[in-house]
Amino acid sequence: MIQKLISNIQKTKAPIVVGLDPMLNYIPQQVKDKAFQEFGETLEGAAEAIWQYNKEIVDCTYDLIPAVKPQIAMYEQFGIEGMKAFKKTVDYCKSKGLVVIGDVKRGDIGSTSAAYATGHLGKVQVGSKTYSAFDEDFATVNPYLGSDGIKPFMEVCKEEKKGLFILVKTSNPSSGEFQDQLINGKPLYEMVGEKVAQWGEECMGDQYSYIGAVVGATYPEMGKVLRKVMPKSYILVPGYGAQGGKGADLVHFFNEDGLGAIVNSSRGIIAAYKQEKYAKYGAEHFGEASRAAVEDMVTDINQALENR
Amino acid sequence: MIQKLISNIQKTKAPIVVGLDPMLNYIPQQVKDKAFQEFGETLEGAAEAIWQYNKEIVDCTYDLIPAVKPQIAMYEQFGIEGMKAFKKTVDYCKSKGLVVIGDVKRGDIGSTSAAYATGHLGKVQVGSKTYSAFDEDFATVNPYLGSDGIKPFMEVCKEEKKGLFILVKTSNPSSGEFQDQLINGKPLYEMVGEKVAQWGEECMGDQYSYIGAVVGATYPEMGKVLRKVMPKSYILVPGYGAQGGKGADLVHFFNEDGLGAIVNSSRGIIAAYKQEKYAKYGAEHFGEASRAAVEDMVTDINQALENR
Repeated sequence: MIQKLISNIQKTKAPIVVGLDPMLNYIPQQVKDKAFQEFGETLEGAAEAIWQYNKEIVDCTYDLIPAVKPQIAMYEQFGIEGMKAFKKTVDYCKSKGLVVIGDVKRGDIGSTSAAYATGHLGKVQVGSKTYSAFDEDFATVNPYLGSDGIKPFMEVCKEEKKGLFILVKTSNPSSGEFQDQLINGKPLYEMVGEKVAQWGEECMGDQYSYIGAVVGATYPEMGKVLRKVMPKSYILVPGYGAQGGKGADLVHFFNEDGLGAIVNSSRGIIAAYKQEKYAKYGAEHFGEASRAAVEDMVTDINQALENR
Repeated sequence: MIQKLISNIQKTKAPIVVGLDPMLNYIPQQVKDKAFQEFGETLEGAAEAIWQYNKEIVDCTYDLIPAVKPQIAMYEQFGIEGMKAFKKTVDYCKSKGLVVIGDVKRGDIGSTSAAYATGHLGKVQVGSKTYSAFDEDFATVNPYLGSDGIKPFMEVCKEEKKGLFILVKTSNPSSGEFQDQLINGKPLYEMVGEKVAQWGEECMGDQYSYIGAVVGATYPEMGKVLRKVMPKSYILVPGYGAQGGKGADLVHFFNEDGLGAIVNSSRGIIAAYKQEKYAKYGAEHFGEASRAAVEDMVTDINQALENR
């Protein structure tokens, strides 16, 4: 799957991923009205609004982008109906040729981590039959529990040719509380990064490992260090746009080959129509606003890469 | 909810929690056969088997125990149908007066963490209506992302009178890889424990905070230290039984008042019928085997507490 991600990036010349994190207040009123008319102001209605919103954004952007990253929390909060919208979104994006990174940040130990891996990336056995439950291509994983939490995911990835992005240095302001603490003079995130590189060696595609890392755009200097610590790991970079990261901050997340990083934007793309810059599209044409925001983001990042 | 947990513990004289982590290979064949006859060897069939298995165990133990801890991964691996079985289990356990600790180990930042908190502990707004999605009483949370990940959960807990158990020192062999690393001479888990104590001060019930911690039974010496670091936090202790922890190892997790800890056993209770010790019940009477295992566990822990 890392090969498909790289090939999609090369084809689109867009090292970006669109975060499908549909909060109800991002969704244009006409989309909500229609869904609520059909299903009422219910969890089912909310799920329908989310699905229609996602579908329009995907339809308007899929030819420009290599991947999407649905954030499962935004679906999970609507319970079973929300999870159905998540699954529908995953399936639809895959049918459009997109790589789907399930931003699930799961992490547990042993058989429990194996169950998460099975549910999101693998196949579950029921009697003599097997089924894929959520079936994303990549999943984000939390490393706090150590190798016992990661290895079961790696096993499933090896079998299914899927991949991981392991949280190393997150984009939020308080990420340093634990992640920046020095251990023998070295920050914890660097130590986690070294483990990601080790785990990644066991799971190599052609040029890159299918065990990647999450490093926030908001910490470019740390990204520079981590790029060297994990030379063969793809870095998923959240925090672009709404969280403050800019194209110029991102160049050090990439390798000299122009590969090795994929930058996420969520609100900046999916709720672009709410920004002054894209206001001309209006809420009616929110999908086209998203398309324009994708084009601008790709230009910003590619220009920064050319000028480095 | 911490008050209800404490009152349930005092009423049952059982500082334990039954981990409802139903792997298909724990479930007696007759339960699976019946479910598969009705729904086929499908995800729906697996979910039905899980639900019937859980129900029998709950029916046979609910009067002896204060709380259950369903491990969501074991349901999530069966997709939407599995999540329905999770929700059914949560609701059923609550109808029996049990406190439900959702072992979900979620953790993200800002609005995403808020969405997880809403989905598992709070209410979600849909137009003019509000709904509870999964509606557990407590949730387990991963601290790797720092305060930005925890605060949104705390807000929901304050509003809904619910609670958290934050991962501090996990029970697995490799938990030390990151958690034991020394920061200015102090291990990371202790630093996380200090934060739990701080967060907990903001969220006090009568005697105990509703912000608790997870500390593995497999690390009794660390439990002793962490007990002092977080005197007002309930400690959820996994790793008893199947993972190797014994009653005598657990006394230091408790405060002098005999409160402050709740010990989890999953496989040791729910698959008790598979142990030699409880083989006499047979797979037919797996629920009674679970009941006997609960009684033995309670005796083991209470004896250890009396002898300390």
